[in-house]
Amino acid sequence: MKITIIGATGMAGKELTSEALKRGHSVTAIGRSSEKLAKLAAGKDSQQLKTVAKDAFALTKADLADSDVIVDAFASSPDQAYLHVDLATKLIAMFRGAKQRLVFILGAGSLKTGEDHHLFVHDMEKNPKVQAIIEVPRNQFAELTFLRTVKNVDWVGVSPSINFHPGAATELLLGKDELLFNDKGVSETSAGTMAVAILNEIEKPQHQKERFTVADR
Amino acid sequence: MKITIIGATGMAGKELTSEALKRGHSVTAIGRSSEKLAKLAAGKDSQQLKTVAKDAFALTKADLADSDVIVDAFASSPDQAYLHVDLATKLIAMFRGAKQRLVFILGAGSLKTGEDHHLFVHDMEKNPKVQAIIEVPRNQFAELTFLRTVKNVDWVGVSPSINFHPGAATELLLGKDELLFNDKGVSETSAGTMAVAILNEIEKPQHQKERFTVADR
Repeated sequence: MKITIIGATGMAGKELTSEALKRGHSVTAIGRSSEKLAKLAAGKDSQQLKTVAKDAFALTKADLADSDVIVDAFASSPDQAYLHVDLATKLIAMFRGAKQRLVFILGAGSLKTGEDHHLFVHDMEKNPKVQAIIEVPRNQFAELTFLRTVKNVDWVGVSPSINFHPGAATELLLGKDELLFNDKGVSETSAGTMAVAILNEIEKPQHQKERFTVADR
Repeated sequence: MKITIIGATGMAGKELTSEALKRGHSVTAIGRSSEKLAKLAAGKDSQQLKTVAKDAFALTKADLADSDVIVDAFASSPDQAYLHVDLATKLIAMFRGAKQRLVFILGAGSLKTGEDHHLFVHDMEKNPKVQAIIEVPRNQFAELTFLRTVKNVDWVGVSPSINFHPGAATELLLGKDELLFNDKGVSETSAGTMAVAILNEIEKPQHQKERFTVADR
């Protein structure tokens, strides 16, 4: 398939690019930095991987229309966290009624947890350690809230667990709207695990117009 | 003040344009049809009213940045009702952190009604007579759902009552999130009443980042 990755040089984007190439897909990697894109492409097959240095908000429908699947792996700085929402609304407006599949990497904040199934973002709001980045989970929750109103675009959202970190894939633990913990009580997702889960979903869709979650087993 | 009206030649837009001019504001009227705009401008002061023939989705920040207030009075056909959402998300993305005030005319479907405070759109969904236009209230509700997640734009939403129709202003009946009925049990809002309510709100803001509703008394 033809897969475009927006934010391809980021933590998740890099693993997604490698995993998609490994499985034989054609990848268009989009990022802002030509340097980072050159590093991403180094040693990879230039027939299979195309890089485009462009700000995500400058992308036109023509830039993306050739793809079967577009993955939004964009990450903003916490002081512009609303850009998560703005890129999602831009991509949705672009693909109304179209055949392209859109995959959005969301955060853990919009997952439910505890006996009362409260939103994990509310736990984060009470944690002084995450105040500096709290607008990120808030806006990723707003992004999912928006996506859930969208009926005429083939979208899917994917949330990692609490600790989303670099690293190779492990076995997958899959869920839907509840925050996952593994047998050791740890809630974490490596970028490699995220990449495998997304490529599995792209190749064999299990979720339509909903969000699922993946953790390291 | 400098007020821009998107959808100025529509039912609500026309009354808004007249009411704003009557109160001495400078108005930029935006619509797709030059003919309709010429008709709107006929007999009006060309110093005070500027018309711009442009599709709402082709508007740039430069087209709107000079305004104090932008009113989204856009109305779509029912088969493209998602454009209500797409224009709102476009305008919000355009004015993140900016000083401009954005006013969105929504529908009655997102208002609550009955003893159980259910959404009026659910009553509409059960009414065979409104099936042809049901996507309009559904998308206007999606638009409000999106707006409610927006924290860094000075937005306000306004819903009319069940029967939103052409006509001069009456006395106002104001509310917040509950569907209004007048003393005769009628739930209606004339475009003139809507225009007066919006100009009142523009001149003396009572609502910040929330929706209110207006009916004919």
